[in-house]
Amino acid sequence: MKVNVMSDILKANDLLARDIENLLIEKKIMSWNIMGSPGAGKTALLEKLIPMLPAQTAAAVIEGDLATSNDAERIARTGVQSAQINTNGACHLDAAMVRSAIDTLNLDGIAILFIENVGNLVCPSSFQLGEQGRIVVSSITEGDDKPEKYPSMFKKADLVLLNKIDMMQHTNFNMDNFHKGMSSTNPDASVILVSAVTGEGFDQLLDWILQRLP
Amino acid sequence: MKVNVMSDILKANDLLARDIENLLIEKKIMSWNIMGSPGAGKTALLEKLIPMLPAQTAAAVIEGDLATSNDAERIARTGVQSAQINTNGACHLDAAMVRSAIDTLNLDGIAILFIENVGNLVCPSSFQLGEQGRIVVSSITEGDDKPEKYPSMFKKADLVLLNKIDMMQHTNFNMDNFHKGMSSTNPDASVILVSAVTGEGFDQLLDWILQRLP
Repeated sequence: MKVNVMSDILKANDLLARDIENLLIEKKIMSWNIMGSPGAGKTALLEKLIPMLPAQTAAAVIEGDLATSNDAERIARTGVQSAQINTNGACHLDAAMVRSAIDTLNLDGIAILFIENVGNLVCPSSFQLGEQGRIVVSSITEGDDKPEKYPSMFKKADLVLLNKIDMMQHTNFNMDNFHKGMSSTNPDASVILVSAVTGEGFDQLLDWILQRLP
Repeated sequence: MKVNVMSDILKANDLLARDIENLLIEKKIMSWNIMGSPGAGKTALLEKLIPMLPAQTAAAVIEGDLATSNDAERIARTGVQSAQINTNGACHLDAAMVRSAIDTLNLDGIAILFIENVGNLVCPSSFQLGEQGRIVVSSITEGDDKPEKYPSMFKKADLVLLNKIDMMQHTNFNMDNFHKGMSSTNPDASVILVSAVTGEGFDQLLDWILQRLP
């Protein structure tokens, strides 16, 4: 008898993810799965964005990392609730981990839940976490070829944030090549150029996020 | 009956990796598994290093990517043999892929085989490819916290190349923090600061590589 383990894992994960999604929709919480390479600037973007949210748009954050609680501590300093998941070696978050983290948060009055995945441009794309949308963070210093080299990740993005735009002048990043890669991989995704250091692009990002509240 | 699939996969992979390692040792070829995040500069480092190798130290390169043959084409332009593996979604190379790639190369007279893994700071660390040593490429623009946040990768490195040192002045990278992370994760690893753009550190890297030829 053939044992098809990977399918079973994914099926169980998707069922749990649907429960999480239903719970969050019922509570009128918009949820984003934020993915990208190690060091692309996922946490730095949240540290910059969260203080810009209107007072009535409260956020909470779930942080996924192999080890350390550094990122959840960074987020907590912005004044919002944060929960740290340590995957202990696993290369992505899954729905069961997110479910456990949600149980540690008080979701009353929360309008947006950001779920920052493990830094990895491959594995996280295969696992639904109950999110309603996906944001992929790429950065200028990683190079302009990432959409075509990591298509599974970019194909499923609603929004691609091209971060570290302030570093552009110090690199040989070819913007036309990046957009060409996005056009062939996922022409429907929004792309916003940002810098978590200078704040460039954050007004546009804030509008994009607020327009997608339930 | 319990079906312990992950262990079986790893066991089969390790057996095949041992065969590859024996083959390469018999042919007096030193082999390096090069790992790091997407965009850390793995290919750029090889493009810079390979032309510096003495004439009698011929190299060949195996490139691993989810998609495209961009990297093998870049390497081929340095004048050495290169083979591209497309993993079609898999987040790491395995020994069977490397075995197939080796069969496309002429190893007569080759002194060093570089195996550039899929850009990923997690999964590749668990899979032996038949390599005799491991090089992890980290970069200044990824931040100083990577050794402690991705310990499984850094724990198994013989050499850590901290690339993009020319970008240091444009970031808030804390070198003490990086070395502290390395000391607690893997105090035995060599660490060399390099820039594939300016060439900084490449004399030291070349010496390090040449000292480890069989």
